[in-house]
Amino acid sequence: MLIAKVVGSAVSTIKDEKLIGVKLLVIREADEHGEAEGKPLVAIDTVGAGVGDLVLTASGSSARQTDITQNRPVDTVIMAILDSLEVDGEITYRKSA
Amino acid sequence: MLIAKVVGSAVSTIKDEKLIGVKLLVIREADEHGEAEGKPLVAIDTVGAGVGDLVLTASGSSARQTDITQNRPVDTVIMAILDSLEVDGEITYRKSA
Amino acid sequence: MLIAKVVGSAVSTIKDEKLIGVKLLVIREADEHGEAEGKPLVAIDTVGAGVGDLVLTASGSSARQTDITQNRPVDTVIMAILDSLEVDGEITYRKSA
Amino acid sequence: MLIAKVVGSAVSTIKDEKLIGVKLLVIREADEHGEAEGKPLVAIDTVGAGVGDLVLTASGSSARQTDITQNRPVDTVIMAILDSLEVDGEITYRKSA
Amino acid sequence: MLIAKVVGSAVSTIKDEKLIGVKLLVIREADEHGEAEGKPLVAIDTVGAGVGDLVLTASGSSARQTDITQNRPVDTVIMAILDSLEVDGEITYRKSA
Repeated sequence: MLIAKVVGSAVSTIKDEKLIGVKLLVIREADEHGEAEGKPLVAIDTVGAGVGDLVLTASGSSARQTDITQNRPVDTVIMAILDSLEVDGEITYRKSA
Repeated sequence: MLIAKVVGSAVSTIKDEKLIGVKLLVIREADEHGEAEGKPLVAIDTVGAGVGDLVLTASGSSARQTDITQNRPVDTVIMAILDSLEVDGEITYRKSA
Repeated sequence: MLIAKVVGSAVSTIKDEKLIGVKLLVIREADEHGEAEGKPLVAIDTVGAGVGDLVLTASGSSARQTDITQNRPVDTVIMAILDSLEVDGEITYRKSA
Repeated sequence: MLIAKVVGSAVSTIKDEKLIGVKLLVIREADEHGEAEGKPLVAIDTVGAGVGDLVLTASGSSARQTDITQNRPVDTVIMAILDSLEVDGEITYRKSA
Repeated sequence: MLIAKVVGSAVSTIKDEKLIGVKLLVIREADEHGEAEGKPLVAIDTVGAGVGDLVLTASGSSARQTDITQNRPVDTVIMAILDSLEVDGEITYRKSA
């Protein structure tokens, strides 16, 4: 799963009816320190994530394995908010309280 | 989902019969300002998108989860037209009226 | 879907029995002018494409959604031959007669 | 399958209920010598891997083909710990005892 | 499908039980001349390929469409050994006898 940072949101009025009622967040891939890098992507949120959160995303058919996303034409889902990451024996990221 | 800009269209006469009647648009991946970049791809349109629109696309098996694309040999679908994007607290894109 | 140019063919005698009888073409990804670029890939042809044709390909599970490719261990299919591409208001590619 | 090195772990409290009880490890893609390179990813462990292990990972829908991961919104699974790799006639990696 | 060269093998004792009995080969993506390039990957062999062979691989769910790989957590399969490749009217690769 990719580590990503939530950086914003997207609004769409004209869309497939299966996208009605889902929350569209803009994310960027992030490193182990929670620093966003790379291009913006749009993901469906299923866990109440907000701007600034470091999250995990699943792609492809795996993105449709949540109650919210099943059978929808979506290929990226946020399904976890990260509390912390430990890499090479150090805490590299900790969610601010 | 990728953010993409619709830049053109494709015409094909000789094709799998499951592609008959679908609209083929040429898109390029875009950034949060709606600026197109990168190589051209072809996507199936399901929402009446046109040249100049900023859209969302789903790839892979997720591209087949709309009424128009189910069971078809297509791996990229346009399933939403973007009204606006907000990144880092700023509106970075707004559809022109 | 990727825009690709057919540049050659592949021959294999020792293969999974589900590959018997399919036509293996060598393709390269192409731009909107039909210029091939990038590395060679092998795709299953389902539409009678030949060397020099500009085609569309579907990848992943979508590659198995044609009558010819269903249930086969193939991840790239040619399912359309392009007649023309229009990008930014110009015809950038037209199939020669 | 990618060759990857386990470099750490991830903790998440707020997550899809299908992620409860799975172990989240941070991995980096590795070369034939077991040297980690590239960006960190998060994978579900199914074989008791730990930091320092060189492992194999499966992505996409294939990541859901284990007893632990089936039907879960996960796109990367660790399903083997490598003992050794032989490339070009040389043992390039051997797990330390 | 990717063109790849078999360059070695991998050994794993601790693994998902669905991986018991499969042959793990190390491959590198190759060009039309059969020259290996890029990083090593691990693939399941289904056709008796050996080091030095130029092969075709299928990825993702397509990798599970052989009798040997079905329902297994594997995302790359070798399902054909190449005899020859012809690109731009020239034989660029021919298997040595």
